[in-house]
This record gives sequence, structure tokens and C-alpha cells, in this order.
Amino acid sequence: MALYVEKYGGTSVGSVERIQAVAANVAASVREGHQIIVVVSAMSGETNRLLGLAEEIHPNPPARESDVLVSTGEQVTIALLSMALDAIGVPARSYTGGQIRILTDEIHGKARIRSIDAANVQNDLEKGRVVVVAGFQGVDAENNITTLGRGGSDTTAVAMAAALRADECRIYTDVDGVYTTDPRIVPEARRLDRITFEEMLELAGAGAKVLQIRSVEFAGKYNVPLRVLSSFEPGPGTLITYEEDAMEEPLISGIALSRDEAKVTVRGVPDKPGIAYAILGPISDTHVNVDMIVQNIGLDGMTDFTFTVGAADLKRCLKVLEPVVEELGATEVVGDTNLAKISLVGVGMRSHAGIATEMFRALSEKGINIQMISTSEIKISVTIDIEYAELAVRTLHKAFNLEE
Amino acid sequence: MALYVEKYGGTSVGSVERIQAVAANVAASVREGHQIIVVVSAMSGETNRLLGLAEEIHPNPPARESDVLVSTGEQVTIALLSMALDAIGVPARSYTGGQIRILTDEIHGKARIRSIDAANVQNDLEKGRVVVVAGFQGVDAENNITTLGRGGSDTTAVAMAAALRADECRIYTDVDGVYTTDPRIVPEARRLDRITFEEMLELAGAGAKVLQIRSVEFAGKYNVPLRVLSSFEPGPGTLITYEEDAMEEPLISGIALSRDEAKVTVRGVPDKPGIAYAILGPISDTHVNVDMIVQNIGLDGMTDFTFTVGAADLKRCLKVLEPVVEELGATEVVGDTNLAKISLVGVGMRSHAGIATEMFRALSEKGINIQMISTSEIKISVTIDIEYAELAVRTLHKAFNLEE
Repeated sequence: MALYVEKYGGTSVGSVERIQAVAANVAASVREGHQIIVVVSAMSGETNRLLGLAEEIHPNPPARESDVLVSTGEQVTIALLSMALDAIGVPARSYTGGQIRILTDEIHGKARIRSIDAANVQNDLEKGRVVVVAGFQGVDAENNITTLGRGGSDTTAVAMAAALRADECRIYTDVDGVYTTDPRIVPEARRLDRITFEEMLELAGAGAKVLQIRSVEFAGKYNVPLRVLSSFEPGPGTLITYEEDAMEEPLISGIALSRDEAKVTVRGVPDKPGIAYAILGPISDTHVNVDMIVQNIGLDGMTDFTFTVGAADLKRCLKVLEPVVEELGATEVVGDTNLAKISLVGVGMRSHAGIATEMFRALSEKGINIQMISTSEIKISVTIDIEYAELAVRTLHKAFNLEE
Repeated sequence: MALYVEKYGGTSVGSVERIQAVAANVAASVREGHQIIVVVSAMSGETNRLLGLAEEIHPNPPARESDVLVSTGEQVTIALLSMALDAIGVPARSYTGGQIRILTDEIHGKARIRSIDAANVQNDLEKGRVVVVAGFQGVDAENNITTLGRGGSDTTAVAMAAALRADECRIYTDVDGVYTTDPRIVPEARRLDRITFEEMLELAGAGAKVLQIRSVEFAGKYNVPLRVLSSFEPGPGTLITYEEDAMEEPLISGIALSRDEAKVTVRGVPDKPGIAYAILGPISDTHVNVDMIVQNIGLDGMTDFTFTVGAADLKRCLKVLEPVVEELGATEVVGDTNLAKISLVGVGMRSHAGIATEMFRALSEKGINIQMISTSEIKISVTIDIEYAELAVRTLHKAFNLEE
């Protein structure tokens, strides 16, 4: 007997029929003798419907109330799925985030989980019940409803798996696993049987959308084996785990493409200590994640400071930096969304030199100009003109023989 | 400065525009310098939409999960109303039933409020915030979500008013007050400026739909002045309060008609002690309210035992009584929904004899046959053939000069 956490996203629970299909899937796991916790999202379209109502009422709704509003989406799903399980003879009990005290910080819309009170869940599992948990939501210390942000249901699933020491956390989604790259761009892309947490983390951070980066972090931190699989077709999916697990180490595991990038450049900054902090401090105060950072020191003692953020955050960043530009005596701050980020990820990089060189060669042969470069132990990212995005991915997929 | 609880039902918050109208109404009270707690229902149609989804999934959904499901309706409304208030510059904060620990018993779908934790609400009011509370819902001691049953938002409003010692609890609805009888039946029906709790209780219990009986009970018990008024047109409405308040006492305050009655008759019961308990015990165990009770002892030592319940409960009652009939050695149990209950209510009855006689005379003059009779200190109810319902109401309204 194993304990599995199964997570189903919005598309998988998008209609009464699909909820019944999920119930059947869960029932099959129960009949195999396993204990099951199910984490579900809102029915697809529901969150947007609710936000649409809010927009009609307020141009910029208070974040606390937005969370009260959208958290009803998952609450509807947990009730319906519990009913669907009961209807086929599987006893089940639903819980909202607040009911099992998924305690988070108080950043509405982007909250982070701190702890979970697993006592009720444990008790239900021991009584042979399936436990159905609302993803994406929690409460802060004052019992205000919080949400974890889009995709937060994955994080809820992993947090439940960690809190209850589950044997595996299974993320059911609309793809059947993690691929070497986006199959819509490279038809030869290959499903990976296994991948390490670190690689998955870098891939997710680099724009691969199959899993939310925070859920992978969480899974890695608490060593929760994570499996991505399709809720529509049977199959083993991709297991995300630690290297120790007798894994062959490919040089490169995958290539990620992100088009949702924006570049912010503060031009003509007098070069003196503390520039980076003066510029990035206010950005991080607004809870915007900064990705790549490049600083070029010119001959005139002036410097251009460039960094990338999510495209959705660009406007906010430019606004925050206006007064900073004045304070620093810089020339101006400009934004650009006309770029894509391509990342090569693989734990094999640790022991192989020359990957970066090979990457730059392949791109230059196709006439693709590299704007920014950033590297980690197991990742190389570059930004390029967005027009060349697909060509770059296809070129690198071939250059590193990922189709084999 | 006064503290008012304002309650708006589903029709009053049925659309974005109506929610904005409610916000404007609340803002007007705030600008007059009052502290306001708003209690709201689900947007009209929403509860039925949710129950419709449940029905597609389960013929008889588990009550616990139904409550999880339908309680999202009010949660959506509190968030949207708080946003609408914020949008016009009125700071507001929403609370679900669970968040202010509206503690109830564990009877899902028909729960009763035991206590409310008013600390947060008090704190918000002191900070000048409007507090927006989800009606109709609470949590039991185990933190399971419960609902109070249809119309339970009125009860929530009164309970909030009692817990916070509000000066008045204002129930905004689609009628502009309490009438001597249903104006759709008697066009001459008159709006009452005031009425006592006892009278309102008897009228509500007798089928007048303007207020839920439990909310009136609650208001009476905690001496919360209750006002019924229209959310669509301005006006003083009807104040429900205690007799002490220098009120002229009319002989009859109102006439209530209920068509949602069912009569259950257990025929041929051997007449021995304990019959009433043997029959009504199992009924009350299923949380069905029994209204009128009549027992006729025949000459043959056999008795017919008859009582009325809500028409919606008839099926359940008949099923519960099947084994009881066998146990008692009775002949059979039969149900009938072809009846209406007409009730005369007035505190003046206490000091006036002959009201019942006058009522029976007026009905008999129109050839209306009385089936069952039941009386309280301030009410006389009769059941008659449903075909004569409107005629009976019009006849009595005239016989007791209620149009004047």
C-alpha cells in the first residue's frame, strides 16, 4: 500500500463529465489498495469568469478580496469531485485550504506555503477515505484567505505530499510528460522517462510550462518524487527525482524557450558602488522576480545596467525605476519585450566542458545574434531576437542530438 | 452614530449593477455616520446553478459536500460587494462564515447558529470599515462548512446584530414591508408600520414569506429590532419589535396563507398510550417539522392520527412511517397535499373572545369546509381545500376590516 497525491488541473476537471473521469481514475488507484489525496484546481474558465466579474466592478480590485473571490473556484471542484467519488462508492471528504490550515504568508495572489495541519487528513486516510483538497489556496496567520498564484495547485499537491510523506506526487496534466523541448516547435522532441529536480527546476525557470517552478523547488527540498503524466491517456509520464536514483546522465536533458520575457535597461548610470542594489532593491520590494542581469562598464565611467523580468511585470518595473533613474543621475530607463530566452539544461554539463561554445557556434551558424548570456552549473541561457526563437530551439535540439 | 446590520437577499445582489446599487446604499448609511455590517446572500440563480451541477453528478449528494458547494455562492458576493465598496471609496472587509467562526450545530443544510466570534468585526468597525459577511453559512465544531438552509441569510443578519448589539437589523427585500396579507390575493392589503415579534413569528410560521421564522425567533430572543424594507424603493418599511414600544394593538394584524402543506394520516391505530410518540418520534428524528396535530378517537377503540408537514417533506415522512404502521398494527398511512392553511394572527386576540367564532362563521357563509383547526394565544389556523385558499383569505381580510 502506497500513499499517492494526485493533482488534476483545470482542464482535467473542466466539466461534469471530466470530473467523473477523474473520480474513475482515483477509484482505480483506491482499488489497487493505495491511499489517495487528490488536489484539484478550479474548473477551467471559472477563475477567469470570476476575475471578469471583479473587473466589471473595480479597475484594480483589492488583493484580499480577489483571493476571497477566486478561491471559490477550487471549492466548487472539491465538492463536486467528492460527490462524484461518493456516487461510485468511494468515500471522500473535501477540504478547503483554510480547513486544513494550509498556512501561508500574507502576500495575496502570490502567497507561499509555510505549514499544513495534516491531522484531519491523516485521520480520514486511516478511515479509508479519499481526501480531496482545494489547490492554489491557503490562509495567513490572521485567517485571511490567500492564493498561491496561477499554477499554485501544483505547489499545494507537493506540499501535501511532503506533509504526509507520500510515496509519490502525481501531477496529471494535458501533456504526457516532460519533453526535450516543446513538441509544437520541434516535432522530434522526445518524452523523458526521468529527469532530476535540478534540471526540471532550471527548465521550469527557463520557461518550460509543464510544471510550476515553486512546486519543483518544494518537491526537491522535501525529496518528494514527482511524476508528470496525462489525465487523458494512460502512460508512465516523466519521473522527477534525485540523481542518486541510478539515472543515466545525458549531457543535455532539455531545451526551454520563453517568449514572456522583458528586458529593462537603465542607461548612463554613473559607475559607483551600490548601483545594483539601488536599481534591483526597489524591484524586489514589489515582488517582481529578476532573471538575467548584465552590467557593461563603458570607457566614460558610465554604465548600462540591464536585467530581464517577466513581460507582465515590465510596466510596473519601469514605473518603480523612474524615481531611481533621477536619484542615480542616470540618463533613462527603457523596456523591450522583443526578445526570447533559450536555455539548455542538463546535469551532464557539470562534467563536460565546451557545451556553451558548441551552443554559440550552432546559433551563429544560423546568423542568430546573442544579446545576453547567463549560466548556472547545469544551465546556459541566452536571449535573442524573438523572431529567431523557434529556429534557435530547432537548431540546438539537432546540434545536441536530443531526438535520439 | 448607530450600528446597523443591513441584509440584502439574492435578488438585491443578482447582478454587477445591483451589487453596485447595494454598495451605494451602504455608502449612504456610512456617510450618515453609521457603522454598517452587511450580510449578503448568493447572487440570485447561483445556488440553483451549483445544485444543478451537483445533481448531474449525484442523485442524492452527501450533505456535507453540498454545503461546501453552495457556500461558495455567498463567498463570491462578499468579495464583489467589498470590491464595489472600495471602488467608491468605502473601505470594506469581507468574511465567510468560517472566518468569523459562525459556530453552528452539525446538521448540514439546516444548521443552527450557536455563537459568533465578533472580535475581528468589532475591530474593523472601529477602524471605520464596513464589514461584509456571507449569510447562510457557518462551521461546526470540527470546522466543517454548514449552511442554515434557504433564507438563512436573515438568520445570519439577526445573529450578527445580536452578537454586536446593533441598534437595528434591516432586512432589505423585494417587498416594502409586512402586509396584512398577500397583496397579490387581496389588493386592499395594507403595509403595517409596526408589528410585534410574536405576531411576525406566527405569520412567518403560518406561511407569510417575507421573513424566515428562525430569524424572527432569534430577533425576539435577543431583542434585536428588525426592520423589513425594500432594496429597490425608499420607504420606512415595517418595524418588528416588542409590544412595550407604545404600539396600538389591532385585533388582527395579518392573515397568512400557506399552500405548501401536506397532511399525513395514520389510519386505524389501536388506541393505546404512546401512539403520538411512536408516530412523531421517527418524524422528528429526520428533522422534519410537524405543524398541526389532530387525533380522533373512534368508537371502535381505533384512532386516526393526522398531522401536517411541509409539502416537500411528505415523501420522506411516508417512508419513515411505513415500518411504524406495521409495528403499531395500524391500517395504513396516507398523504394529501390538496390543502391550504389559513392563519389569523394578532396580539389583540389575547384580550378578545369570539375571534375564532367570527372566523368560522365568515368561512361557512362562503361554503368553505374546515378540515383541521389549531390555535395559539395569538393565532388561529385552519386547513381547507386548496381550491378555496384565495377566497378564504379575501373573505377573512374583509370580515376583520383589515383594509382600514
